[in-house]
Amino acid sequence: MAAPRQINAAPLTAPAFAPFGDVLEVAGDFRVINEGLCHRHHDLARLDFGPGGRAGISVFDAQARALPYDFTLVERHPDGSQAFVPMTAAPFLIIVAPDLGQRPGNPVAFLSNGAQAINFHRGTWHGVLTPLSEPGLFAVIDRIGPTPNLEEFRYDAPWRVVAA
Amino acid sequence: MAAPRQINAAPLTAPAFAPFGDVLEVAGDFRVINEGLCHRHHDLARLDFGPGGRAGISVFDAQARALPYDFTLVERHPDGSQAFVPMTAAPFLIIVAPDLGQRPGNPVAFLSNGAQAINFHRGTWHGVLTPLSEPGLFAVIDRIGPTPNLEEFRYDAPWRVVAA
Repeated sequence: MAAPRQINAAPLTAPAFAPFGDVLEVAGDFRVINEGLCHRHHDLARLDFGPGGRAGISVFDAQARALPYDFTLVERHPDGSQAFVPMTAAPFLIIVAPDLGQRPGNPVAFLSNGAQAINFHRGTWHGVLTPLSEPGLFAVIDRIGPTPNLEEFRYDAPWRVVAA
Repeated sequence: MAAPRQINAAPLTAPAFAPFGDVLEVAGDFRVINEGLCHRHHDLARLDFGPGGRAGISVFDAQARALPYDFTLVERHPDGSQAFVPMTAAPFLIIVAPDLGQRPGNPVAFLSNGAQAINFHRGTWHGVLTPLSEPGLFAVIDRIGPTPNLEEFRYDAPWRVVAA
C-alpha cells in the first residue's frame, strides 16, 4: 500500500468550514432570553431532511481515535444534513472533502475547539465520527426516513491527519 | 413573600421523565456503524414542530446557577418540542411541571448525570435552562416558526430546589 498522504488538521472556523456545512458555536448575534441570563444564538444550521424525511435526534457512542489518524473511507448522506453535537467539551476531528461529481476530491481536516458543534450540509462528503478522547458521546441530528441515505467512497491510498 | 417550598432534584431517568419528555442517552438498543467503532442509539426524541414550523438548531449560552435554587417562573412552548443537549459533561438541572389545564401543577426537578440530554415534549411546562457550572453551553433543537410559541406562568410563591 502507498505511504499515507499527509493533511494537517486546521482550527475549525465558520468561514473555512462554510463550503461543507455550519459551525454551531457562540459567535455573532444573539437574542437575550430568560431575564437576561441566557443568550440564544438562533437557528445556526441549514437543516435539510429532503422529501419523505424528518428530523431525529440519535446519540452516537464512538470510540476515541488519536492523531496521527489514518483513513481511506469517507461517506455522504444524499438525502439529508447531519449535525454532530459533542456532549463533552473535548475537541474532535472533522474530515470533509469537496464533491467532484459523484466522487470526493482530496480531503481536508479540522479540529474543533471544545465549544463547537457542526452540521454537514446535505450530500457533503465526510469522514466517520472521530472523537479524540473518551467518552465519544454525540447527539446527532439527521434524517429519519425510509431510504438508505448513505454513499461510501474508499480512496485508493490512505490519508494521514496530523496536528497542525 | 412566603417561605420557599422545597423540592428535591431526583436523578434523571427515562421512566421518571417520561410524562414530560425524552432522555437522550446511551441506553437500550443500538445499531453498530462505522465498521464497529460507533453505536447509534437511534431516533430517541419525539420531535414535534407543529404546522408551519421546522426544526432548527440554536446554541444557548446560559449563566450557571447553584443549588439550592429558587424560582417562581416556568414556561412552555405550545407549538413545538424543545431539546436541550449539553455541550459539556457537567450535570444540569431540569425543572418540569404537569399541566393542570392552562396552568402548571407543582414542579418536579431532575439532575442529569453528565451524559444525558433531554427533549421536552410539545407543550410541557418547564423551567428555564439551568446549568450548574460554566460554561452553560447547550445545543437546542426546537421549533423555528412565525408564532411566539411561548407561555409563561409565575407561581405565587417561590420553590426551592435542593440536592436529593
